[in-house]
Amino acid sequence: MRWLAEVHVTLKPGIADPEGQTVAGGLRSLGFETVSQVRAGKLMRVAFEADDHAAADAAVSAMCGRLLANPVMETASWDLRADQEPEKEDM
Amino acid sequence: MRWLAEVHVTLKPGIADPEGQTVAGGLRSLGFETVSQVRAGKLMRVAFEADDHAAADAAVSAMCGRLLANPVMETASWDLRADQEPEKEDM
Repeated sequence: MRWLAEVHVTLKPGIADPEGQTVAGGLRSLGFETVSQVRAGKLMRVAFEADDHAAADAAVSAMCGRLLANPVMETASWDLRADQEPEKEDM
Repeated sequence: MRWLAEVHVTLKPGIADPEGQTVAGGLRSLGFETVSQVRAGKLMRVAFEADDHAAADAAVSAMCGRLLANPVMETASWDLRADQEPEKEDM
């Protein structure tokens, strides 16, 4: 069974985020003066095979711990759904 | 009124995604052999002020068009919610 996980990787509170600060400064200088903060993160859409929801969830958790997120500085969360469509080149 | 927008910026279908391909290769070599595809994107959490939901939505749309996403190669989507909590240093 094919699964599609949308993984959100965000910096933990308190970790400096120069990318977010730069984007916030850029938005303010473009006229969006009420922007108080931007936090930047990563989004990964992972397509993979697993037998059932529990196995898929465990696999995503392991992927996050081993590669997708740095557990010291980042937090990962994900949405998981069964992918009914036939495999395509692009999601 | 303070709003919090979670903006997802993803590459359009058909645009090459070397970061996603590299992550997919890394996951496979770590033993997640059923990973068929990874698409990488960006996640931006933007805190800003706007009078109402319509104004906030228009502001996020303008931010995406002008800075957050490259409309030629990327697609932006967002969730918007009113932020009830007092302003904090980190989200």
